[in-house]
Amino acid sequence: MGGFFGIVSKSDCVRDLFFGTDYHSHLGTKRGGLATHDGDDFIRFIHNIENSQFRSKFEDDIAKMRGRLGIGVISDYEDQPLIIGSHLGVYAIVTVGVVANLDELARETFGKRATHFSEMSGGEVNPTELVATLINQQATFEDGIQHAQDVIEGSCSILLLTRNGIYAARDKFGRTPVVTATKDGACAVTLETCALPNIDCRVERYLGPGEIVWMTEDGIEQIRPPGDCLQICAFLWVYYGYPSSNYEGINVEVVRNRCGAALARRDSTDVDLVAGIPDSGTGHAIGYANERHLPYARPFVKYTPTWPRSFMPQDQTIRDLVAVMKLIPVHELVEGKRLMFCEDSIVRGTQLKQTIQRLYACGAKEVHMRPACPPLVYGCKFLNFSRSRSELDLAARRSICEIEGDETATPEAYADPDSDTFHRMVEGIRKRLNLTTLQYQRLDDLVAAIGLPNEKLCTYCWDGVT
Amino acid sequence: MGGFFGIVSKSDCVRDLFFGTDYHSHLGTKRGGLATHDGDDFIRFIHNIENSQFRSKFEDDIAKMRGRLGIGVISDYEDQPLIIGSHLGVYAIVTVGVVANLDELARETFGKRATHFSEMSGGEVNPTELVATLINQQATFEDGIQHAQDVIEGSCSILLLTRNGIYAARDKFGRTPVVTATKDGACAVTLETCALPNIDCRVERYLGPGEIVWMTEDGIEQIRPPGDCLQICAFLWVYYGYPSSNYEGINVEVVRNRCGAALARRDSTDVDLVAGIPDSGTGHAIGYANERHLPYARPFVKYTPTWPRSFMPQDQTIRDLVAVMKLIPVHELVEGKRLMFCEDSIVRGTQLKQTIQRLYACGAKEVHMRPACPPLVYGCKFLNFSRSRSELDLAARRSICEIEGDETATPEAYADPDSDTFHRMVEGIRKRLNLTTLQYQRLDDLVAAIGLPNEKLCTYCWDGVT
Amino acid sequence: MGGFFGIVSKSDCVRDLFFGTDYHSHLGTKRGGLATHDGDDFIRFIHNIENSQFRSKFEDDIAKMRGRLGIGVISDYEDQPLIIGSHLGVYAIVTVGVVANLDELARETFGKRATHFSEMSGGEVNPTELVATLINQQATFEDGIQHAQDVIEGSCSILLLTRNGIYAARDKFGRTPVVTATKDGACAVTLETCALPNIDCRVERYLGPGEIVWMTEDGIEQIRPPGDCLQICAFLWVYYGYPSSNYEGINVEVVRNRCGAALARRDSTDVDLVAGIPDSGTGHAIGYANERHLPYARPFVKYTPTWPRSFMPQDQTIRDLVAVMKLIPVHELVEGKRLMFCEDSIVRGTQLKQTIQRLYACGAKEVHMRPACPPLVYGCKFLNFSRSRSELDLAARRSICEIEGDETATPEAYADPDSDTFHRMVEGIRKRLNLTTLQYQRLDDLVAAIGLPNEKLCTYCWDGVT
Amino acid sequence: MGGFFGIVSKSDCVRDLFFGTDYHSHLGTKRGGLATHDGDDFIRFIHNIENSQFRSKFEDDIAKMRGRLGIGVISDYEDQPLIIGSHLGVYAIVTVGVVANLDELARETFGKRATHFSEMSGGEVNPTELVATLINQQATFEDGIQHAQDVIEGSCSILLLTRNGIYAARDKFGRTPVVTATKDGACAVTLETCALPNIDCRVERYLGPGEIVWMTEDGIEQIRPPGDCLQICAFLWVYYGYPSSNYEGINVEVVRNRCGAALARRDSTDVDLVAGIPDSGTGHAIGYANERHLPYARPFVKYTPTWPRSFMPQDQTIRDLVAVMKLIPVHELVEGKRLMFCEDSIVRGTQLKQTIQRLYACGAKEVHMRPACPPLVYGCKFLNFSRSRSELDLAARRSICEIEGDETATPEAYADPDSDTFHRMVEGIRKRLNLTTLQYQRLDDLVAAIGLPNEKLCTYCWDGVT
Repeated sequence: MGGFFGIVSKSDCVRDLFFGTDYHSHLGTKRGGLATHDGDDFIRFIHNIENSQFRSKFEDDIAKMRGRLGIGVISDYEDQPLIIGSHLGVYAIVTVGVVANLDELARETFGKRATHFSEMSGGEVNPTELVATLINQQATFEDGIQHAQDVIEGSCSILLLTRNGIYAARDKFGRTPVVTATKDGACAVTLETCALPNIDCRVERYLGPGEIVWMTEDGIEQIRPPGDCLQICAFLWVYYGYPSSNYEGINVEVVRNRCGAALARRDSTDVDLVAGIPDSGTGHAIGYANERHLPYARPFVKYTPTWPRSFMPQDQTIRDLVAVMKLIPVHELVEGKRLMFCEDSIVRGTQLKQTIQRLYACGAKEVHMRPACPPLVYGCKFLNFSRSRSELDLAARRSICEIEGDETATPEAYADPDSDTFHRMVEGIRKRLNLTTLQYQRLDDLVAAIGLPNEKLCTYCWDGVT
Repeated sequence: MGGFFGIVSKSDCVRDLFFGTDYHSHLGTKRGGLATHDGDDFIRFIHNIENSQFRSKFEDDIAKMRGRLGIGVISDYEDQPLIIGSHLGVYAIVTVGVVANLDELARETFGKRATHFSEMSGGEVNPTELVATLINQQATFEDGIQHAQDVIEGSCSILLLTRNGIYAARDKFGRTPVVTATKDGACAVTLETCALPNIDCRVERYLGPGEIVWMTEDGIEQIRPPGDCLQICAFLWVYYGYPSSNYEGINVEVVRNRCGAALARRDSTDVDLVAGIPDSGTGHAIGYANERHLPYARPFVKYTPTWPRSFMPQDQTIRDLVAVMKLIPVHELVEGKRLMFCEDSIVRGTQLKQTIQRLYACGAKEVHMRPACPPLVYGCKFLNFSRSRSELDLAARRSICEIEGDETATPEAYADPDSDTFHRMVEGIRKRLNLTTLQYQRLDDLVAAIGLPNEKLCTYCWDGVT
Repeated sequence: MGGFFGIVSKSDCVRDLFFGTDYHSHLGTKRGGLATHDGDDFIRFIHNIENSQFRSKFEDDIAKMRGRLGIGVISDYEDQPLIIGSHLGVYAIVTVGVVANLDELARETFGKRATHFSEMSGGEVNPTELVATLINQQATFEDGIQHAQDVIEGSCSILLLTRNGIYAARDKFGRTPVVTATKDGACAVTLETCALPNIDCRVERYLGPGEIVWMTEDGIEQIRPPGDCLQICAFLWVYYGYPSSNYEGINVEVVRNRCGAALARRDSTDVDLVAGIPDSGTGHAIGYANERHLPYARPFVKYTPTWPRSFMPQDQTIRDLVAVMKLIPVHELVEGKRLMFCEDSIVRGTQLKQTIQRLYACGAKEVHMRPACPPLVYGCKFLNFSRSRSELDLAARRSICEIEGDETATPEAYADPDSDTFHRMVEGIRKRLNLTTLQYQRLDDLVAAIGLPNEKLCTYCWDGVT
Repeated sequence: MGGFFGIVSKSDCVRDLFFGTDYHSHLGTKRGGLATHDGDDFIRFIHNIENSQFRSKFEDDIAKMRGRLGIGVISDYEDQPLIIGSHLGVYAIVTVGVVANLDELARETFGKRATHFSEMSGGEVNPTELVATLINQQATFEDGIQHAQDVIEGSCSILLLTRNGIYAARDKFGRTPVVTATKDGACAVTLETCALPNIDCRVERYLGPGEIVWMTEDGIEQIRPPGDCLQICAFLWVYYGYPSSNYEGINVEVVRNRCGAALARRDSTDVDLVAGIPDSGTGHAIGYANERHLPYARPFVKYTPTWPRSFMPQDQTIRDLVAVMKLIPVHELVEGKRLMFCEDSIVRGTQLKQTIQRLYACGAKEVHMRPACPPLVYGCKFLNFSRSRSELDLAARRSICEIEGDETATPEAYADPDSDTFHRMVEGIRKRLNLTTLQYQRLDDLVAAIGLPNEKLCTYCWDGVT
């Protein structure tokens, strides 16, 4: 998905910028970047973080950076920040989101015979460069950012750094969060609020959908008020977000605990212990165990010294290897046990199947699975989440195909969790994963656990509603 | 402390050697090293891992390594493995432990005017090179290893790789574990058993104190039987070990759960939730929460993408910074709450004090602390644990000094957990840390939680008994 | 100045591209870059070569490159090659020359509100990106390249790589050379012909001024015929070029030998030996010594293992240090000797003065200097040569200022080598450098040594004629 | 061969140590190393220089080094300097030479069961570590160094750095030079005197064979007087040394010029121009051209920006490639010309043959060759020169084998340059290399060109006399 951070300070901001950006490391696996303006020039560094930590890659750079304002990014895809020169002046820019109509927009701009894209890798247009091009088509930054958001399909939150300040813009429907914050002598903007406490910042305001603000030394000024329609991604709480983060004021760990509790309230399966698939299943499992007063335990421990976050080995063999290597079983907590596992979600189920096999190989008596969200049946169009995955690879869709004997079957008939079709779909998944029992979260329970009105949440990947 | 791994295989062993060694990353912060013999020559790589992961540093090297037998090490102190040539032939060697009489032994060897040490950094003798020198003084490897263990004070477990096999020796009193393992076509030796399952190895045997084995393609042969006196470090279960590891057949996570349960059984404090100081307090806290049927929660989340394990920044300011940066609070789980924390132990208490202050700053109503072991009053002489720490820095010793008004006061009078002196010492610590309540584990409860007879455990840091 | 190389082959071209580009290393000190098209995508690498060799920086990259066509560049200034996407498609581009009206052209393009520059460093527009923008303004590559050359003041030779072939364009007045070449199964294009023999290529044709060709697997096709007016830089033979290179079919070493001979023919000074200031003075000195049948010698030897070419240390102190360190005197060939030195030219004379002082310090009896070209009085506007040097820093201008007592004095009156004013100017330089005698080459002798008609040569820096 | 440099100064010595060592870069291709003592500890860096320059590798290190005394080394073989701890204290050591009886000495030391070698790579003993072991066997450094030189067969010059000063020892027969030097506030020791002028040092004294001195802040003290028998390597002047260096007070470039002149005096072949095979043939060719008043020219130019010195590509294919790539022909100076080439020597002749073929391919009419020394018939036993070459690979031995039809033929009968056998051997080489004429230097002429009495020169590789 990616994440970003920006800061404007009365003193040098590099240390805060470094840590503020670093606290988004869990959101992206390909590129990290930082840019400051030191009063004279922009200073920028971009590194490949596919196989090492942001911290290791940037620790030397920050000694060469200075400035009282800057932006940073963790990117799942393209090189960022870009330094752009145009009739608006020179600026740095980072974006989070997905420009679904990228090719169409690029063709349109080309048509005017007056622009080009130079940040291309593998022949593809750099989405952030395209966004900059859209901004440059207008007379002011404000108009340009608004224009970009009007024509982009998908989502696009933006930080734009000039020599004087930072424009921060939340995407049109607020699918990704953008939060302003303050501390003595500085104001900041972040995607993840977990970036704030350790650099002594407090949340100032959760920007609304499409809202634009202008941050300078003198404070934060609203440039464009928020729109009416909020469609924040519900998956942020379920999976993406760091447990210490809040979106719309609602904490991730707390929601996960409530998700687990909700699953527990509809469950009376007899088990010996409750566990989560690390890391994102942990919060759900704790909530489940507490609700049912069952022992919580860690039959699998993740080897964080080596696998601190998701990496992107280019080789599929190595990727499978990592899946095996990162979790180490505790035999004593598996052998002969009836195990209740909470997991954030089941996507394709490939690695989960392998994990379950290993539990049986360790002597597990029963393995029960409780995903914290309903079956995924639609691929995300609004964030980078499912960029390279076919919808038909989703475990639920596969199960539907098997039932229907037809790849073109529409999943609508399998939506109602009280229906027989739904139960047959779940049963298909259960069998394939070789689980003792499998019970999904209901969408209404998930929405209640988050605590926002349903219409403010994007639940597209579960119900196809846009 | 450090850790090591060795393997002899019928096919190339490099991948297993790499992962087997890597799974000791939590045990050392300074150097990593690998050595194989490829049939013709030794191939060796050593890297500084103070500021990055073993994996990142060695991933390129392993493409250049090959061989059917090899050894690896994670070292808290010196460069290893060394490649040594002597009248015994050429061999590679790694060690774990502490040679307490290093200077004396070096002087003795110098006295013979016939040896030297070339692996010196900062003018200090490399302990592993000294061990090699001791081995070389005898006619055979067996005699040499035995001789080394006879004259070394402290502890010294050894892996010694020749072109034909590996000698594995557990230190004289078994303070550190050494475990042999097997799989089809290979046998291995490890300090941490958590290194085994993901490379498909099963524990063969927990070597006894002073035991020496010789591992070749044909199997594992006992060269010297174990001694009678076992003094395995109890702190391995409490703090050092990875949750998935077993020593003497007893699992770490299980012991931690039992430690927490033991603390819980002697406690009736009213609290809202139970939590552990990550990472090593987690297992204790889970045990505590389960025993008292109290809600377990994570009011602090460690930012593992950036701080996957302990690092050793050379600068103290940065070290303090890391302490702050690695834990991110979840306000919702702290504010207005009565928090019960389990921690593995309290050493100096400096960083813990800071952590507690942050909890109050987040609005914690009460902060209770339950260390999983008794107060530390003696510095370890047998492992690297307390190398650079003065005994008088220990929180318990500091409290005793304040009570006695005298740095030379002996701590014996404060040993009995039922005594008034003990309670006054604990109260001193509680006040300094600003805790609502503080209750330490009793030594007998700890010993029971581990499950070995007291006389087989080294409990020196708590009771001074050697 | 910079240099470039391109190749289209029936088989993989990477090795030839690497060496072909590498043989331009003497022409630039800041950036090196390579780009190929592998049938699917562009593959590009750019490295900083300010402090190390092109070869060391790119040796690892070429293992990752493949393709049957590619371009490479050694650049004195900006990052290249750029990968550009536009309505013309995706392409890679490199340029050599100087866009004197860069800021004006950038402002014009911005004015259309539809373009931007993303390859900015320190807030400056990347000249090659600007050239791409100019090309993109037209309907075809041919029209675009011609348009760029029409509006650019200065000079701009271009290689433009598409997935199907390479456009090669020599700058409008042919100030820099562009040469096509062939071998079995491949055709190439180069700035320096010294890049050709060791990759088995033969010169096909020296492109004329403003000429554009299109190179594919099937051969080289003229797209635009050459213009009438050639103004090739005479300094290429005197200083820039590698001795093994030819421009307009005329070899550099041969011209240098003829330059030295011309100086010799007007000279009868009694000396003990003749020497060149390495490296570029060597060819001139050999010609001089041979013409007068005087002993040629090497009283200074350049320490090439450490100073293989010019480097660009950022620190002026270090730059001065390098000047001292790179030449090692041979006392025996200096002490008590009357030394005749040939040098390519005298620019500011700062380092030369230091070198002369060292000769006296080694016991030189007399030091005579013979620059192979006339006094430099105008700063180059057409290549990057004098980018950062003020005209008033030139040794000749400084001497004129001293004579006139006025910085605004025009140098026209000092142009005639037979005039008294000219002799007074030279005498001023001679005194400042503490030379026994100083005699410059006459411009007519230089032109004759090169062998092209005067009107085809750019001699602006000597006579101000454009 | 390798080279070393040491300095003791009243102020920080790191800059001088860096440059002093760097000026030996032409003598070794594998390792570079520096060590200083900063008053408290030794600071040491060793780098692989097989594929990059000493300067690039050490530029970052020197910022971390400090101290008023230090030693440095360019090594063709082993890791150096070593930091050694022994009963003599801690010291750093570098050596130049070859320990011909290495294995025997190692076995002897092992026999005492009290030493070992830890600096082993590929199972081989590090010769410098062996030398240290030999030194440690005595009661003092002086006795130790003398002992080492007494038992070593081959040659071994030594710099040994303690916290107080540097011991410098020239090998027993003075095969390699060791020269002391001074400047204000410092004294230095070097192998190559070309290291001195640019750091403002003057030669103090050329140490005699086996001489040992002790250098401190207070000056240079003779510890052991020189022996009677000098056997300095004559090849130092012919090939190894840098033109700016002197040995026994005799300059390399001057000797090379005299070598060329001597060849010229015995020659009357009609040619168009005289040239040297770069780099080491240049000085010889200049002497030849000057003596015969023939034009000197550069029909081959070495591409120094990329090939500043010899490198050691591990791959033979790449090594051959380098041989082709490093020289670029100047067609105009080859085509139709009768070329007289001077070369330092002909070893195997493999690459020379290739070079000659390229000259004919460029249209050379005649190619004449004049090696500056007699035919090489014996492999060097005293320096590293011929470490990996079989004597039978030498061009002269190959020619003898062909004449005799027998590999075991002794070359004695071919020694006299006036004999018919000698002429037949030379004719064999000429034919194989496809030369128009081939005339070798006579040994008496070579000795006269150097200017030392024959008995003070080692001429073993030509006459087998030890």
